[in-house]
Amino acid sequence: MHMPLEDSLGLNLLAANQHRAEHNRAHFDAWDLLCLNVMSSPGAGKTSLLERTLSQLADDFAMAVLEGDMTTQLDAERLEAVGVPVVPITTGRACHLDAAMVSGGLRLLQQRLDPADLDLLWVENVGNLVCPAEFEVGEHRKVALLSVTEGDDKPLKYPVMFREADCVLITKVDLLPYLPVDVERIAAHIHQVNPHCSVIQVSASRGDGLDAWHDWLRQQRTAQQSRSLVVA
Amino acid sequence: MHMPLEDSLGLNLLAANQHRAEHNRAHFDAWDLLCLNVMSSPGAGKTSLLERTLSQLADDFAMAVLEGDMTTQLDAERLEAVGVPVVPITTGRACHLDAAMVSGGLRLLQQRLDPADLDLLWVENVGNLVCPAEFEVGEHRKVALLSVTEGDDKPLKYPVMFREADCVLITKVDLLPYLPVDVERIAAHIHQVNPHCSVIQVSASRGDGLDAWHDWLRQQRTAQQSRSLVVA
Repeated sequence: MHMPLEDSLGLNLLAANQHRAEHNRAHFDAWDLLCLNVMSSPGAGKTSLLERTLSQLADDFAMAVLEGDMTTQLDAERLEAVGVPVVPITTGRACHLDAAMVSGGLRLLQQRLDPADLDLLWVENVGNLVCPAEFEVGEHRKVALLSVTEGDDKPLKYPVMFREADCVLITKVDLLPYLPVDVERIAAHIHQVNPHCSVIQVSASRGDGLDAWHDWLRQQRTAQQSRSLVVA
Repeated sequence: MHMPLEDSLGLNLLAANQHRAEHNRAHFDAWDLLCLNVMSSPGAGKTSLLERTLSQLADDFAMAVLEGDMTTQLDAERLEAVGVPVVPITTGRACHLDAAMVSGGLRLLQQRLDPADLDLLWVENVGNLVCPAEFEVGEHRKVALLSVTEGDDKPLKYPVMFREADCVLITKVDLLPYLPVDVERIAAHIHQVNPHCSVIQVSASRGDGLDAWHDWLRQQRTAQQSRSLVVA
């Protein structure tokens, strides 16, 4: 549940969230981990993608997941089954994670491990193509997923998410033969809204594009570590 | 954009919306029209379904559409092309329609026609499986769409929408042969959350289930008119 934010009260609330998000990010930087906020409509394939990525990158990175859902721990259980520590964050009626919820999740995670031992911390947001984009949680990178089944007009109709994203994964490309959808048109619409983001076509079930996606992840981690060296 | 509503301020805002929604509904009743609020995730097929329904029921009902979108009038143009009056409501950063927006849309609609001449008024909400369910706009019936591509766990993970719905359309069933999804399991999960709602499997592109859906619509309209007769 939520209310519109066009008034000063709403702006104060966003500012308070931003303050907490920066506090979270200061922790992430001190722990030298890269935090990624993964967002999309319900059913675009966030959990399926993470199942593949957590499994395939298990030897490269130490990882953990903060798993946001309104109710149920179904997704948390799916990811825990891959062998990665997962902290479920149940949002109740809230349609997105905010920085305070992630801060609470971090405290639970610290009971199980030392975050300084992690390379990547995944935040899987509530399925919603609108609201999560407006609430930073302290992440270093925003990753948006858009399924080919959602049609090619969505980047234009829901521009906030795509404007904020560092990387957009066009998912379920294995279904393209059965859909009246032009994937190049989807990519063009994403770049129309955000000319600088990376766009990668993937299929978690068939494996298309996962190498490119994992290369992107390695580049982000390397760039972060190079910057830390320069600062140090 | 929005904020959580767990405080008294949020409850006041919901109460104010409810008051306006009842005001809208009083108008709908005076005009003797049936108002339907159509909701789903982005890309579940609301506009494609309405294209088919508006076209196939053109001889049965006088209809108009209030078309909610964050930006663009792409959907409004698609539906206007069917030959039905469409008023676009652009929500900007808001992730749902509220009663005040619909009230504003009604005023624009009245510049084009007399609502008392309508049988059905469609409200196509912003694509979002969470927030629209909490903001009544004065509708008589809530229709939720869930695409088979979204997976079978969504009614459990996003229960508010499915608890509120009078009818749930399971869309894109033409894609079932290509998906690791059991449609009966989707239906069972919907009924687990809401034992009384109607559940209809449809494919707007292939035509499956449209007769059953249109029968449901006719029943709702007939039921409304029988009640008006009893009251009169």
